Amino acid sequence: MKFKAKEIADMLEGVVDGNPEETVTKLSKIEHGEPSSLSFLANPKYTPYIYTTEASVVIVDKTFIPEKPLKCTLVKVENAYTSFAKLLEIYDQINRNKTGISEKAFIAPSAKVGKNVYIGEFAVISENAVINDNAKVYPQVYIGENVKIGTHTTLFAGVKIYSDNVIGNNCTLHAGVVIGADGFGFAPQEDNNYQKVPQIGNVIIEDNVEIGANTTIDRATLGSTIIRRGVKLDNLIQVAHNVEIGENTVIAAQTGVSGSTKIGKNCMIGGQVGIVGHITIGDKVQIGAQSGIGSNIKESDVVLGSPALDVSIAKRSIVYYKNLPKLVERINELEKQLKKINEQK
Amino acid sequence: MKFKAKEIADMLEGVVDGNPEETVTKLSKIEHGEPSSLSFLANPKYTPYIYTTEASVVIVDKTFIPEKPLKCTLVKVENAYTSFAKLLEIYDQINRNKTGISEKAFIAPSAKVGKNVYIGEFAVISENAVINDNAKVYPQVYIGENVKIGTHTTLFAGVKIYSDNVIGNNCTLHAGVVIGADGFGFAPQEDNNYQKVPQIGNVIIEDNVEIGANTTIDRATLGSTIIRRGVKLDNLIQVAHNVEIGENTVIAAQTGVSGSTKIGKNCMIGGQVGIVGHITIGDKVQIGAQSGIGSNIKESDVVLGSPALDVSIAKRSIVYYKNLPKLVERINELEKQLKKINEQK
Amino acid sequence: MKFKAKEIADMLEGVVDGNPEETVTKLSKIEHGEPSSLSFLANPKYTPYIYTTEASVVIVDKTFIPEKPLKCTLVKVENAYTSFAKLLEIYDQINRNKTGISEKAFIAPSAKVGKNVYIGEFAVISENAVINDNAKVYPQVYIGENVKIGTHTTLFAGVKIYSDNVIGNNCTLHAGVVIGADGFGFAPQEDNNYQKVPQIGNVIIEDNVEIGANTTIDRATLGSTIIRRGVKLDNLIQVAHNVEIGENTVIAAQTGVSGSTKIGKNCMIGGQVGIVGHITIGDKVQIGAQSGIGSNIKESDVVLGSPALDVSIAKRSIVYYKNLPKLVERINELEKQLKKINEQK
Repeated sequence: MKFKAKEIADMLEGVVDGNPEETVTKLSKIEHGEPSSLSFLANPKYTPYIYTTEASVVIVDKTFIPEKPLKCTLVKVENAYTSFAKLLEIYDQINRNKTGISEKAFIAPSAKVGKNVYIGEFAVISENAVINDNAKVYPQVYIGENVKIGTHTTLFAGVKIYSDNVIGNNCTLHAGVVIGADGFGFAPQEDNNYQKVPQIGNVIIEDNVEIGANTTIDRATLGSTIIRRGVKLDNLIQVAHNVEIGENTVIAAQTGVSGSTKIGKNCMIGGQVGIVGHITIGDKVQIGAQSGIGSNIKESDVVLGSPALDVSIAKRSIVYYKNLPKLVERINELEKQLKKINEQK
Repeated sequence: MKFKAKEIADMLEGVVDGNPEETVTKLSKIEHGEPSSLSFLANPKYTPYIYTTEASVVIVDKTFIPEKPLKCTLVKVENAYTSFAKLLEIYDQINRNKTGISEKAFIAPSAKVGKNVYIGEFAVISENAVINDNAKVYPQVYIGENVKIGTHTTLFAGVKIYSDNVIGNNCTLHAGVVIGADGFGFAPQEDNNYQKVPQIGNVIIEDNVEIGANTTIDRATLGSTIIRRGVKLDNLIQVAHNVEIGENTVIAAQTGVSGSTKIGKNCMIGGQVGIVGHITIGDKVQIGAQSGIGSNIKESDVVLGSPALDVSIAKRSIVYYKNLPKLVERINELEKQLKKINEQK
Repeated sequence: MKFKAKEIADMLEGVVDGNPEETVTKLSKIEHGEPSSLSFLANPKYTPYIYTTEASVVIVDKTFIPEKPLKCTLVKVENAYTSFAKLLEIYDQINRNKTGISEKAFIAPSAKVGKNVYIGEFAVISENAVINDNAKVYPQVYIGENVKIGTHTTLFAGVKIYSDNVIGNNCTLHAGVVIGADGFGFAPQEDNNYQKVPQIGNVIIEDNVEIGANTTIDRATLGSTIIRRGVKLDNLIQVAHNVEIGENTVIAAQTGVSGSTKIGKNCMIGGQVGIVGHITIGDKVQIGAQSGIGSNIKESDVVLGSPALDVSIAKRSIVYYKNLPKLVERINELEKQLKKINEQK
């Protein structure tokens, strides 16, 4: 990127206070400002930094009046935080505004590729796959047979999607994500060997879903594993076969959801949580990090711990757990006193 | 797939009751049956659905007698469940019946490739690697030098196998699996830096092993990390250097096994379990999800919790843990009463 | 490899006792020695094996005097363990001494590639990326725009580095590692949807860092996620946005560090640990496996458990936890006795 202060002011409908030709090539935090960088001041706590920052241009609220001389050029806007967020988005879009199909990609003859797409080097688009308009398929992505990729969806490098899965519009799958590997289903035999249960369902990912790096979502045995619209999954999460995750539910890194469990919408689930199979978790449930969920959870419940308890009970139990040594001392004392009383009788 | 009811009946040695020309192109659950799909009825609980299902063809036990008119065509067989499982398997085999070597793969001159194999686009087969008959190497798989891949083994997209490792026959490695990365060995130095301990052993995976997506199995420092025949590992599992996992042991997702630990055969280990290094776990051991295993476990033991206890004790301790607040109230009451008694004396 | 006993003695400044022409082609443990292999005897516990081992050549301390006849040829050195470690390193270097740029790699015109590098098949080096001298980029690695890779750094197969990230010198990134995926930042909206917070910072990895297979390190929202020199990360670890990990800190597999947390130097962190965001962990802290860290930890503290307690308290609490059933029996008994006393009054 390369912008002049006056161009930034134009984009943000703001006013330059300083040198309108001042040029910036990157973004920085105000407390770590570097020359030729653009920063912002929104939180009054950071005001002192504006007098010392090396950033060349700083976005401020139009109400900001400096109390000392400034080295930097200001761009004054209605709301500095909102304006900076808008800039971040523009920057992000510019950085990731890729189009064009690499000659080094492999696209099967029967695959359908929409308009304005990006397909990077060594990507594989298999037979009958459909890549819709404005999708971005980074290098080394694997897309199996009959897969559908929605419009404006981005698959970063090395995403692997097995055959027959469906990815919605405006989704982002980060590098190393695996969609549609076989669910973990094996039937024990009398000779202690296991017989594989074929996993012939698929995965359906609805619109506006984001999936973090190296997360795995298994295909259903029969039917579909479903990730509803707006779901956000962090890195290294495991979603087993036939799971359904409700819309706008957010799950932090390294959590695992076992087979056939149904999670409601608008839930917030912490990191490293384990959830058993075949249960139902209601809407708006909140689950603390590292919890272990072994049974159904009702709508709007807030739980914590392994096994998970209602958060208020869990927090008390944790305090009592920490105080177990003291508790034992109290019991020792009680026994001593009682022994004395009994001896005195 | 595309089958007529009469073709299905022939495959399953069954009899058509309805239109033998009825055609199906996919499979469905009876409760979610769609037109042109094939379903089955095995569990009496689902009998009501057969009168309303949209599935075009339904496999039923030959003893099934409808009590109302049916829209669907029936295929009557000896055992509907077994027959459907057989069909699933056929379907699975058809879907994954790939052969042929892509011109876009890279195969080193000294590598040996057997008959009837599949090698997908941008796969890399390094020097002196051996790919045996009927193996399937999906696109973007990396096979290092001297690696051996057994017959009828499938490596899905993006599997990475470092040099010198050995994969048996009839194995399935899912997308993103990493076999043979360096074990985590560093010797602390006096200056607080760590000196890497070279990891020059390998990984040996025996026959009939299945390994889930993005699971990692490290090479031994010296000697071999060994996964015995019939082992099934779920997604995102970590197996450290010099571990040995006994035959037909099953491990659920996100479990980690630390270095040099030996796990027996026919064990069942839940998800998110952590197992320390240098211990021995006997045959037929069962370990509950999220357990932490810090010492040896005897044959056939069933354990739970972190730290893990015998399952009956663990379950009681969990109940007591939940009741800690009540326990403290009881101690409060005891102290109050005792104080009164002591004061009365 | 192929070495004669006398060549090994020359490399290690040792003396041959036996046949100087004896040839070895691989390494083995003394207790599992195979013909044509080289082994060593350092731990007196293993001395009995030297009389039965099939290894052709064994490195021993120069003070070793056999008490029985030996089949193997000896190489006597100052310190057998140190010498063998040195040999391991040489072996490792020979095995991984790759150079040359594959014609099947994709290197953008503006990328800069140093001397003596290895770039494998189907690797992607994007615009303005810099690969410094002696770096090794294995097949199917993805290197985004503007990425810098230091000298003598190795990226194993399928490593994926998003744009703008910086990898130091002498680093090793194992297969499937993802560097610089978006941090997990979403702002809740009034309609329950989430708005993505653009993640436009980067990841900086300093020198001598090793990162295990399939580990993920997210880019900062703004600024940098920083992994200081000498850090060693095991497999399947999650490092969130804006985290900083201090020099020579070692973290075992499957641990997760949440956003903006700062970890000191020379820490040792066990496997499957979860660390919340926005906290500070001092230097030289030790954290036991499966711990849950919810608040700051002071320098040199040793903690354990979820929630983590000082290790001495944690170990006592674990004992008390195991004894909860007995504790309840004691309270039952106290209540019974007290009831009796109260009735007698």
